[in-house]
Amino acid sequence: MKAEIISVGTELLLGQICNTNAQYLSNKLAEIGIDVLFHTAVGDNRSRLKQVIQYAQERSDLILFTGGLGPTKDDLTKETIATHLGKTLIEDPTSMEQIIHYFKQRNIPMTENNRKQAHVIEGSTVLPNDHGMAPGMVVQLENIHYLLLPGPPRELIPMFDQYAIPYLQSLFQEQFIVHSKVLRFFGIGESALEEKLIDLIDRQSNPTIAPLANHAEVTIRITAKAKSLTEANQMIHEVETEIESRVGEHIYGYNDDSLAKVVSRLLRDQSLQLALAESCTGGMISQMLTSLPGASDIFAGGVVSYSSFAKTNVLQVPVEVVKDHGTVSGDTAKAMANSTRQQFHSDVALSVTGVAGPDSVEGHPVGTVFVGLASPQGTEFYALQLSGSRENIQLRAAKYALFYLYQWLNRS
Amino acid sequence: MKAEIISVGTELLLGQICNTNAQYLSNKLAEIGIDVLFHTAVGDNRSRLKQVIQYAQERSDLILFTGGLGPTKDDLTKETIATHLGKTLIEDPTSMEQIIHYFKQRNIPMTENNRKQAHVIEGSTVLPNDHGMAPGMVVQLENIHYLLLPGPPRELIPMFDQYAIPYLQSLFQEQFIVHSKVLRFFGIGESALEEKLIDLIDRQSNPTIAPLANHAEVTIRITAKAKSLTEANQMIHEVETEIESRVGEHIYGYNDDSLAKVVSRLLRDQSLQLALAESCTGGMISQMLTSLPGASDIFAGGVVSYSSFAKTNVLQVPVEVVKDHGTVSGDTAKAMANSTRQQFHSDVALSVTGVAGPDSVEGHPVGTVFVGLASPQGTEFYALQLSGSRENIQLRAAKYALFYLYQWLNRS
Repeated sequence: MKAEIISVGTELLLGQICNTNAQYLSNKLAEIGIDVLFHTAVGDNRSRLKQVIQYAQERSDLILFTGGLGPTKDDLTKETIATHLGKTLIEDPTSMEQIIHYFKQRNIPMTENNRKQAHVIEGSTVLPNDHGMAPGMVVQLENIHYLLLPGPPRELIPMFDQYAIPYLQSLFQEQFIVHSKVLRFFGIGESALEEKLIDLIDRQSNPTIAPLANHAEVTIRITAKAKSLTEANQMIHEVETEIESRVGEHIYGYNDDSLAKVVSRLLRDQSLQLALAESCTGGMISQMLTSLPGASDIFAGGVVSYSSFAKTNVLQVPVEVVKDHGTVSGDTAKAMANSTRQQFHSDVALSVTGVAGPDSVEGHPVGTVFVGLASPQGTEFYALQLSGSRENIQLRAAKYALFYLYQWLNRS
Repeated sequence: MKAEIISVGTELLLGQICNTNAQYLSNKLAEIGIDVLFHTAVGDNRSRLKQVIQYAQERSDLILFTGGLGPTKDDLTKETIATHLGKTLIEDPTSMEQIIHYFKQRNIPMTENNRKQAHVIEGSTVLPNDHGMAPGMVVQLENIHYLLLPGPPRELIPMFDQYAIPYLQSLFQEQFIVHSKVLRFFGIGESALEEKLIDLIDRQSNPTIAPLANHAEVTIRITAKAKSLTEANQMIHEVETEIESRVGEHIYGYNDDSLAKVVSRLLRDQSLQLALAESCTGGMISQMLTSLPGASDIFAGGVVSYSSFAKTNVLQVPVEVVKDHGTVSGDTAKAMANSTRQQFHSDVALSVTGVAGPDSVEGHPVGTVFVGLASPQGTEFYALQLSGSRENIQLRAAKYALFYLYQWLNRS
């Protein structure tokens, strides 16, 4: 099966946004064994879109469209495809209900142009949009499958994963499956990791081993092509065991895990509540933990002690500690964790104090960070020297704090 | 002049990398007034690349290629173009010298395939590569300009900026410039905004008016093409004034502004310090404010009061208020803001309490949010009913809180 992706939107051609949808879809299609041979981006223009569709029909069995399903006048993807295929648009009652419900719930009047979003191409299979109003759809005509997806990634990604992938998988006769497992690393750089695994990476073919650095972490994706899921899992397991024996201490999770997820899971399993005291991370760790549903089970709360006053008066860190050791110090980190643990009556407390930049603080260079950890077993601190932009230092400090907690939870 | 971008590389079609080159080039071309009408990505495959070139020749005056200029076997962009145009490849002595120098300097033997990188299409203008080995080039044939650029962004960007842009500008007879201004809106949806501006959008040509929804906000980009910057600014100003007269109450900033930036600026201008009490936003507002350098000038700190215990014991909200009105209520939001303002000795305090989901709380449906604002002038609260995913409700609640503070700072 030959596939191509057509992304519709003038904002792409003006360089206002990057075509991350094409990347996401290509990656997912590769995983299920569909070859993508072309990406095209075209503006909100009927005749140019039509031309692009014609070229695609000559060379592909599956054409994926992203964007142009919204309510406004320049959203013309489905109208253009319908006209081109000689089909009409009909109102999908389920989608219409959802749109009416959306406006009712928010208590705002529905404008007339929103009705347009419930229109689908006749004879198509509708893909529900659980995170927006415009539904997706698949139409088949003369052995070509046309798959229409919304433009905003937060609508496209869940729709594609949940509804489009099962549809596409059902089209195959082929006898193999492609299965992946992602190993998530922290505290090791991409090149250091690659150096330790270079012989495995060099002789890879099936399974493939693909390292990727992103958001201050490194992942390795192991992908196997096999006759069955059991066989694929066995192949992945062998490679994984070898990787684990070399760099296992840096693996904290798998697939969709994040440090916040893994730490939350361990806290829940051990029936522990956490409290936080954040200075230089400014609420980032709180935000990471509370972005997960059910956070209140394991998270009591936190203080963002961004001023010295907040440290001594709200957090009630002893004034002498700050005076004797400075706000950026291991002792202050320990005192912050202790105070927070007491104030929130939590089992464990984590604190971060440091210099995110751009200016140095109390003579400490940008990137100096101390993490404190208080528990019934005592209080400890960790010293870090990070580099990069303010944003990067904050992100890495937050993740290091969670990683130390992860290691503590594993040994306790 | 009609342009299009052809990116060559199988890694794009596998979703291993995102086509940031197409975005970068499009943005830069728009700035110098060249319309980009298509992006195409194609793999390292001779016949498919040839097909893509044929389509491009039928519709464009300028074809930009990225990638496939390197030393390896799958780098075939210039060979394919040369063959297609009936041209031969010749060795460029300057590029060859540079490559030899590169290996000499590093004291590593030059492999034979590196010689290939110094080959350019006969009759082309060579664009030096100051950050790598493969030179770029421009060829003109029958009124079509073919511009070949390397794939790695750190080579492509400086080459394009320094050598390709002056070349492209020299092609123009007319000396005009293209200038944009982005208006940033909050508290109004994309379709509601468009409905209020539909006549302006319908009759647009120069300046153009492009709405875009992203991250719970809407922006409008006004782009003018003119003989001078003064003239362009005047044209933009006229459209902006008209938009302002209709929906000015929703405009909070321009260009690279964010709600956090604008609020921080106003606090700094008015010498005010802010404190926060966050429940359902879980530290997100703190994180937004402290991601900006110099946040300590305007931000005292905050409490993430994720449990009732944190609300009454750490934040010291009176127990009766929570008991009588519930944790999710306007009264509790007001009490949270008051307590925080007192505890942090700040001038202003903002609080958020609500239901981010997935489960309802105290009988309140998911999306119920109350924002409190305490200042020397008194305490007030705002009620919101938001919808969407947990992540979306948190993001929108955080931005609404900042927007209310923005409005308060503007009227005080």
